[in-house]
Amino acid sequence: MSAKNGERIPTKAYAAHSKEWKFKPFSFTRHALGQNDILIEILYAGICHSDLHSVSGDHHGTTYPIVPGHEIVGRVVAVGQKVSKFKIGDYAGVGCMVNSCGECDACKRSEEQFCERGKSIFTYNSVDYFHGNENTYGGYSNNIVVSENFGIKVAKDADISKIAPLLCAGITTYSPIKFSKVKKGDKVAVAGLGGLGHMALKYMIALGAEVTCFDIVPSKKKTVLKLGAKRFIDVNSDDFKKIKNEFDFIISTIPYEYDINAYHKMLKLNGEMAIVGLPVKANINGADMIWNFRKKIYSSLIGGIKETQEMLDYSIKNNIYPEVEIIPITRLDEAYQNVAKGRVEFRYVIDMSTLS
Amino acid sequence: MSAKNGERIPTKAYAAHSKEWKFKPFSFTRHALGQNDILIEILYAGICHSDLHSVSGDHHGTTYPIVPGHEIVGRVVAVGQKVSKFKIGDYAGVGCMVNSCGECDACKRSEEQFCERGKSIFTYNSVDYFHGNENTYGGYSNNIVVSENFGIKVAKDADISKIAPLLCAGITTYSPIKFSKVKKGDKVAVAGLGGLGHMALKYMIALGAEVTCFDIVPSKKKTVLKLGAKRFIDVNSDDFKKIKNEFDFIISTIPYEYDINAYHKMLKLNGEMAIVGLPVKANINGADMIWNFRKKIYSSLIGGIKETQEMLDYSIKNNIYPEVEIIPITRLDEAYQNVAKGRVEFRYVIDMSTLS
Repeated sequence: MSAKNGERIPTKAYAAHSKEWKFKPFSFTRHALGQNDILIEILYAGICHSDLHSVSGDHHGTTYPIVPGHEIVGRVVAVGQKVSKFKIGDYAGVGCMVNSCGECDACKRSEEQFCERGKSIFTYNSVDYFHGNENTYGGYSNNIVVSENFGIKVAKDADISKIAPLLCAGITTYSPIKFSKVKKGDKVAVAGLGGLGHMALKYMIALGAEVTCFDIVPSKKKTVLKLGAKRFIDVNSDDFKKIKNEFDFIISTIPYEYDINAYHKMLKLNGEMAIVGLPVKANINGADMIWNFRKKIYSSLIGGIKETQEMLDYSIKNNIYPEVEIIPITRLDEAYQNVAKGRVEFRYVIDMSTLS
Repeated sequence: MSAKNGERIPTKAYAAHSKEWKFKPFSFTRHALGQNDILIEILYAGICHSDLHSVSGDHHGTTYPIVPGHEIVGRVVAVGQKVSKFKIGDYAGVGCMVNSCGECDACKRSEEQFCERGKSIFTYNSVDYFHGNENTYGGYSNNIVVSENFGIKVAKDADISKIAPLLCAGITTYSPIKFSKVKKGDKVAVAGLGGLGHMALKYMIALGAEVTCFDIVPSKKKTVLKLGAKRFIDVNSDDFKKIKNEFDFIISTIPYEYDINAYHKMLKLNGEMAIVGLPVKANINGADMIWNFRKKIYSSLIGGIKETQEMLDYSIKNNIYPEVEIIPITRLDEAYQNVAKGRVEFRYVIDMSTLS
């Protein structure tokens, strides 16, 4: 793989051509390497529940064919003339964004996901206005071109097959855990133990918090206790309904329709609930929320590039990695079915060497 | 008026005998003065929208006859043997609570409204388990007996006819404004300009914030601008719908059914919305809430006794008083109709000398 001067870069990928979860090999070209860009040969890409939503067209409309994948890690194989952050041979990661306006206050303080001009360019299914408004294609592919500013540096000694999920599941949970100042001794909970949830569990255990886990799949109990959770509660059990006023912090990663009040009431006075799952529909009764006084709710969206770098460095340094199941790209359709059922422990990662 | 040793104290009041807003003179007795109690001759009592909800039985059931009134100010006319905080002749205020368990962590740190045993005793329509489970009767009456711990000291030089509304409208808005750390230069908003809303306006102007006001009654514009608001927006105008990402803080005092999302989206990133109005029903779309990232919502309930004292001292010292219309108690029925329509500028206060 190389980047010839000014020429578009051929890319092999797997794409869905309709809202059905059926993937086929797909070839396209990426924009030519710019002066500030790097070309990454993708080694691994994670499968996030948001990928399923995007293929299904659940949120904001989808342009087909779609190549999902915003948990990307690989090796830098070419750099533009002005690139200083990376050199050929480095590992690099790409998360949910490949660019943004760069000029507004949010971008300047590296909260590019909250670009005030609404011009965050997402890694796939997004309009790249820096490159003729072409559609972006994600990480279920053998390469990606990205501005060095949106590349995340990955240490040489990292466990590279486990890095990809950190770029979305890692930062999406790390960011609100930091924002809500979770600390040692806090009683906290994770609602939804998938890719995001189990990373939230790991970060909060690392901080010294006492973690309760909620999930609809009782068989996850054994694993989450092994990972350090204090308690596992089956969401369909009677125990679930009894919990009230217990937690300093709850993070909800649930990607399906659910009852937000059922968790909100579990907060202690002055507690905070961060919602990071993006269900198409979420039920909340306003009056019930109001009668649970001084319990804050907010949602959180990934994290900025600066914080993503901080999260990645912290995770590698502290040996905090996702639990992954490495699959060949040919198993994508089956993987989607399992993700939809919440039965993955806890993240599928595609080995991109299987893309021939 | 006096308190004979160990005898119950005769009280004159106005009560509603059904969920209709019709008041009639009503006589009853209050429990005898205990060693730690004070007897207050009530001079003024405010009319709060919650009084209407309580008479209507909207929230938690109502015991009739009901004597509302939790914005009470008067003169101490008798003190128990062990009372040290008040002496005869002092002014004293009573707000929404007359007692609580006193033993749990919340009570110990003077957040009695959040008594962890659920044993806050409210000023009316509440079970007084310290006194044989008798029903409590509120401030539309000529006297009240209360533990000195729940009496609020009122400075001699206070503008006494305007003090009563501070005991609920004042503390209910002061507390979340402090909790959310509103400060000079913040862009803030008040939704609902009644008794609570106009106090929120005054406190936030005193702090140096730039205040936008939202109400359904356009004629309030003139008054709120005179009080120092930067802007008044009619909730039924097109301007209302256009506002997004503008405020560091919003306080909603709306007591009717409304759309919470319509305000939540107006918060800036990292902004906070405090809900203090207690509508029977409040609409909120969970998914719309989630897609407005990093904007915190919470509700707040009055304030503890310590903070109520702080608020009252601050208000008197800084000459922050409600705008009141003083009425005779015979005008209660009419006053309720006007409060329900949101047409009061901004608080009715009953002159209790009109109770004969």
